[in-house]
Amino acid sequence: ILRPPLQTVTLIPGDGIGPEISVAVMKIFEAAKVPIQWEERNVTAIQGPGGRWMIPPDCKESMDRTLIGLKGPLKTPIAAGHPSMNLLLRKTFDLYANVRPCVSIEGYKTPYTDVDLVTIRENTEGEYSGIEHIIVDGVVQSIKLITEDASRRIAEYAFEYARNNQRNSVTAVHKANIMRMSDGLFLRKCREVAENFKDVKFTEMYLDTVCLNMVQDPTQFDVLVMPNLYGDILSDLCAGLIGGLGVTPSGNIGANGVAIFESVHGTAPDIAGLDMANPTALLLSAVMMLRHMGMHDYGKKIETACFDTIRDKKVLTGDLGGKSKCSEFTEEICRRVRDMD
Amino acid sequence: ILRPPLQTVTLIPGDGIGPEISVAVMKIFEAAKVPIQWEERNVTAIQGPGGRWMIPPDCKESMDRTLIGLKGPLKTPIAAGHPSMNLLLRKTFDLYANVRPCVSIEGYKTPYTDVDLVTIRENTEGEYSGIEHIIVDGVVQSIKLITEDASRRIAEYAFEYARNNQRNSVTAVHKANIMRMSDGLFLRKCREVAENFKDVKFTEMYLDTVCLNMVQDPTQFDVLVMPNLYGDILSDLCAGLIGGLGVTPSGNIGANGVAIFESVHGTAPDIAGLDMANPTALLLSAVMMLRHMGMHDYGKKIETACFDTIRDKKVLTGDLGGKSKCSEFTEEICRRVRDMD
Ligand SMILES: CC(C)[C@H](C(=O)O)[C@@H](O)C(=O)O
Ligand SMILES: CC(C)[C@H](C(=O)O)[C@@H](O)C(=O)O
Repeated sequence: ILRPPLQTVTLIPGDGIGPEISVAVMKIFEAAKVPIQWEERNVTAIQGPGGRWMIPPDCKESMDRTLIGLKGPLKTPIAAGHPSMNLLLRKTFDLYANVRPCVSIEGYKTPYTDVDLVTIRENTEGEYSGIEHIIVDGVVQSIKLITEDASRRIAEYAFEYARNNQRNSVTAVHKANIMRMSDGLFLRKCREVAENFKDVKFTEMYLDTVCLNMVQDPTQFDVLVMPNLYGDILSDLCAGLIGGLGVTPSGNIGANGVAIFESVHGTAPDIAGLDMANPTALLLSAVMMLRHMGMHDYGKKIETACFDTIRDKKVLTGDLGGKSKCSEFTEEICRRVRDMD
Repeated sequence: ILRPPLQTVTLIPGDGIGPEISVAVMKIFEAAKVPIQWEERNVTAIQGPGGRWMIPPDCKESMDRTLIGLKGPLKTPIAAGHPSMNLLLRKTFDLYANVRPCVSIEGYKTPYTDVDLVTIRENTEGEYSGIEHIIVDGVVQSIKLITEDASRRIAEYAFEYARNNQRNSVTAVHKANIMRMSDGLFLRKCREVAENFKDVKFTEMYLDTVCLNMVQDPTQFDVLVMPNLYGDILSDLCAGLIGGLGVTPSGNIGANGVAIFESVHGTAPDIAGLDMANPTALLLSAVMMLRHMGMHDYGKKIETACFDTIRDKKVLTGDLGGKSKCSEFTEEICRRVRDMD
């Protein structure tokens, strides 16, 4: 029998608890017999010619070849002038869409039930342009840059996403009443793209109104699309509704299939190496990755095993309200995955 | 007997339900025998010489004299180039601090209990500078302007507020990891001012982290201070936690005692004139006003009557879950106010 060649995924374990939650994901993938192989890479920033910060060439080379990455948390750089590795990765691979599905997890109690929405954040420009000036002493300006191309691209991504994922509506989130030109441009592009997706309902809402409505009744939202900073805020807010960053997956999507999936929680240095970490966010990010790669059945299997373990409440890590170790939680998911065969 | 002269307050009833909720507040003030008199003014924008938009001179003149305003909702202008009256008022009187206490209301159920925090928003600059450009076709920039003076002023206001209102901590909310110069300047001023208020605890937190933590456990927050746009977002988010804009008071504070207190909900044109509106937000804003004017006892009395009416659940407007008319809800509060004598 000819076996199909294994697809390769670049694995960036990251810092702190990153390595142990990466091991957890690898074990679960093995139990599920997912036909991929991992290529581990490190992403400590290095300085290239002229002092420009860049990700290590062997990581870049791996991603350029595999196109798909899975990434654990990276520690925030403390040296002045040292760039955020997360931002550098988004930039290097032009990962223009940050996608975060926020779905209530049965058995994990929060003030909300039935949350089922997706935030889609423009990941390359806006308030994150990095252009700032001192005008005169004591007067500083930061520039928010909005382009037609990036706005159209993210709007198209959002509508395609809605269509491909059986979602009904896309809401553009903006402050075009205040930033009439920049958010105005973003909004105009969303409206234009909406014209080509008549099967998806389109609405627009002010960011402040979204926040207010979100905490009152998140079930009214479906797919939300927005400029960079608003996405930073809203994606974290929504993660909070379903239990926090420890259970929220995230994907950064670029053109031509390139994508890095990541857990967006911190490195938790206080518990690193103690077998106490919760691998759920990285695991659910890996499930998003499988769907992105077209491996829906493997994705479903692993997701089900993870959610069943949480709903069952018998084997949970500390942050989920249990007393089990990371390895025990992982083994329980593996067991359930194997039982599905 | 010589009666002390009555203090005058400029009343801007506003549009839609504005007039009827203003009448409600006036009736309750009368029942409580609050020693103030109202001077009603209208604020439809007019165009001055050179086409500059301004608020009507008789409203400006009244505010310049009384220094204190109470304002209902204003309809959002639809004509292009027509400014937001809310922004124009903030600008005209340099109302640099927007203050919104968010306190859980007993008897009005939301997913949260024991919320008790205050958002303090810089109201004059930041992303609201109104400076925008088209760089080339399809590329737009908006400028966020942060100054040392405005940052210091709002930080000082926040710490003074905390000290004068028996609050323990001030949290500066920022994204100085991204907007290093602008938010960096804001944050630096907060740190400097904190040095002069050793009795108040000072912390700093990223806006995204605040949003995440806020929906998970708002009770961890006390006074929050932040640049303009972040305040726009966070103040509405927090209002959502306690029941929405219909029950949230707001004050816009300037130098030398000038202040306008306002309900921040909409004009609700669909129910305007039908005696169905809920006057709570305007009433609680008026209570903030009384405290600002040093009339703490009158403020307490009215606030108690309002909260007791809501807790009692017998006479409530539709949005509060009852079936009573605005006038009946108002009369119930009046009755309780009179009973306290
Ligand atoms: C790490 C930081 C630069 C980043 C951001 O602000 O975008 C983070 O908050 C995120 O959402 O990925
Ligand atoms: C009406 C609008 C201009 C305003 C703002 O964005 O500041 C409103 O949302 C507010 O919070 O007062």
